[in-house]
Amino acid sequence: MPQLNRQVLLKARPADIPGPEHFDIVETAVPELRDGEILVRNQFLSVEPAMRGWVSAVANYSVPVGIGEVMRAFAAGEVVASRHQGFAEGDKVTGLFGWQDLAVVGAAAVTRKVTETDLPLSLALGVLGLNGVTAYFGLIEVGQPKPGDTVVVSTAAGSVGSAVGQIARLSGCRTVGIAGGGAKTAQCRDDFGFDAAIDYKATNDLDAAIAAACPDGVDVYFDNTAGRISDAVMKHLAVRARVVICGTASVSSWETWPSGPRVERHLLVKRARVQGFLVFDYQARYAEAIARLAGWVRDGRLAYAEDILDGIDQAPGAIKGLYQGDNRGKRLIRLHP
Amino acid sequence: MPQLNRQVLLKARPADIPGPEHFDIVETAVPELRDGEILVRNQFLSVEPAMRGWVSAVANYSVPVGIGEVMRAFAAGEVVASRHQGFAEGDKVTGLFGWQDLAVVGAAAVTRKVTETDLPLSLALGVLGLNGVTAYFGLIEVGQPKPGDTVVVSTAAGSVGSAVGQIARLSGCRTVGIAGGGAKTAQCRDDFGFDAAIDYKATNDLDAAIAAACPDGVDVYFDNTAGRISDAVMKHLAVRARVVICGTASVSSWETWPSGPRVERHLLVKRARVQGFLVFDYQARYAEAIARLAGWVRDGRLAYAEDILDGIDQAPGAIKGLYQGDNRGKRLIRLHP
Repeated sequence: MPQLNRQVLLKARPADIPGPEHFDIVETAVPELRDGEILVRNQFLSVEPAMRGWVSAVANYSVPVGIGEVMRAFAAGEVVASRHQGFAEGDKVTGLFGWQDLAVVGAAAVTRKVTETDLPLSLALGVLGLNGVTAYFGLIEVGQPKPGDTVVVSTAAGSVGSAVGQIARLSGCRTVGIAGGGAKTAQCRDDFGFDAAIDYKATNDLDAAIAAACPDGVDVYFDNTAGRISDAVMKHLAVRARVVICGTASVSSWETWPSGPRVERHLLVKRARVQGFLVFDYQARYAEAIARLAGWVRDGRLAYAEDILDGIDQAPGAIKGLYQGDNRGKRLIRLHP
Repeated sequence: MPQLNRQVLLKARPADIPGPEHFDIVETAVPELRDGEILVRNQFLSVEPAMRGWVSAVANYSVPVGIGEVMRAFAAGEVVASRHQGFAEGDKVTGLFGWQDLAVVGAAAVTRKVTETDLPLSLALGVLGLNGVTAYFGLIEVGQPKPGDTVVVSTAAGSVGSAVGQIARLSGCRTVGIAGGGAKTAQCRDDFGFDAAIDYKATNDLDAAIAAACPDGVDVYFDNTAGRISDAVMKHLAVRARVVICGTASVSSWETWPSGPRVERHLLVKRARVQGFLVFDYQARYAEAIARLAGWVRDGRLAYAEDILDGIDQAPGAIKGLYQGDNRGKRLIRLHP
């Protein structure tokens, strides 16, 4: 008897942010393994803002998920059967296994074997996964923080932003987080050690709040939002500032480019740099980042927060919540076999 | 009897582009030299787009010229008296000598002694002056062209743009110039060796024209204009493109930031970089650039164009013409002692 596999399929292509109406949950039989394949039982499924891009028909940095296909997702789980010599039953793995209980995949879908088995497996999808690696390379390689720099981070309580702030602090920088709501700004200060945190929802004058928090200007801005938060930060760039564009979460549609303030003159006067960053360009160096991040987690110098939803039924509605700021850390779906 | 010196003074602060109504021409006595000073007889005065910024009250990268002060300007001339041991009568010099016949200055105002006396002195204000050095460092250091790259330049027939195009070609790149009018695009192709030239005034669809001229996308965009020309180029950035913001000539006022298309998402997807560039940051390395540029001029591999107006009376109206595209090369005022 083949095992039954619960899968979340893309049913319709959303105009902007995907919601429950765009997905179906089905039960299907798990196919036989072929040579070179492994069967992974997922324990955690990732939910992330990038998923909006993955299901968009607009040209992007990845091919859109097809209608009727399993929703693309990173997941972490255990190898339960293997016809690939590089993997054995019991190996912990993370990769593009999709929103489903069981994944039959080739080695190309595996991001890595999880070797830091002294730490929770879920971290492989957060602070020791793409979020942590994104924070690490985006800040270090593109932001190039120097001791004494002021580093501003948007969505600072999020899984990427919180790691950026802490890595910046470990790099000798002053850190200023921007987040929405008092709970998140408290989390920035208390849990993630930001020197200052700005609640953009509670201030009428974000511009003045940034000026007050950054008296010497902003040397590095790690931008996860775009939109009006970024517009306010941009005004306060210091000479030779570096802006890392990592995400654009506050703008719900880019199908025609929205309008905003022109920054050309300001960038010229400040000799500042704005650069788009995509973590996949650093794939060959993930191990280097994960080793450092895991070391900091073990030392207690890198805190993280998780926002765990129980059961695959939660998946279809889970993306929208990220854009509404519902989560309090890396959002994950925990599966119960 | 003291000599009389014709000087162009800033009379009123313009709201945007300075014109004749913002200047006065006066005759004053030349003061006695003090120790450490030299007297320079200017032979050529520079006219450049940056002058709009120099007379603007808005915070910028330089202190505004004061009302009643001699208009700040680069000039080239000859030392006619010296009380500084580093300079002798007959030395050719270039520096911030102002719009006037005669300048009494300290050594700090001198950019350099002009040693390439086999070439015309006027080149020290153009292809062997800030324009050439701007093109050189902006393209090489910020644009980082690689052989095979497509390099697009705006105001491509201008003194900076024409040098950028030629240095890019010498770096093994395919070059596309954008200029206004058939005479300028012909100059781009025939005199400056651009592989393609786009007349932005003659096309209704700049976007399509750029797409046609850059089938593999734009690897480096050297931006002298900002505004709608840049908006059209930005759409065609290749992955890992570099945009050098060197000037913003097409936008007449930045006092409140004008609106334009938001590029954040596009920069992210393309992992592209936009960076402001100010040549003064490379002051310590000017000699390196000038030596290479002079070598290319002597070899006939670096062409230049000059647009020479005769007599200091032409100075007050000369800036506006740059913004109207009247000039056909580096605009200079030639003085006749």
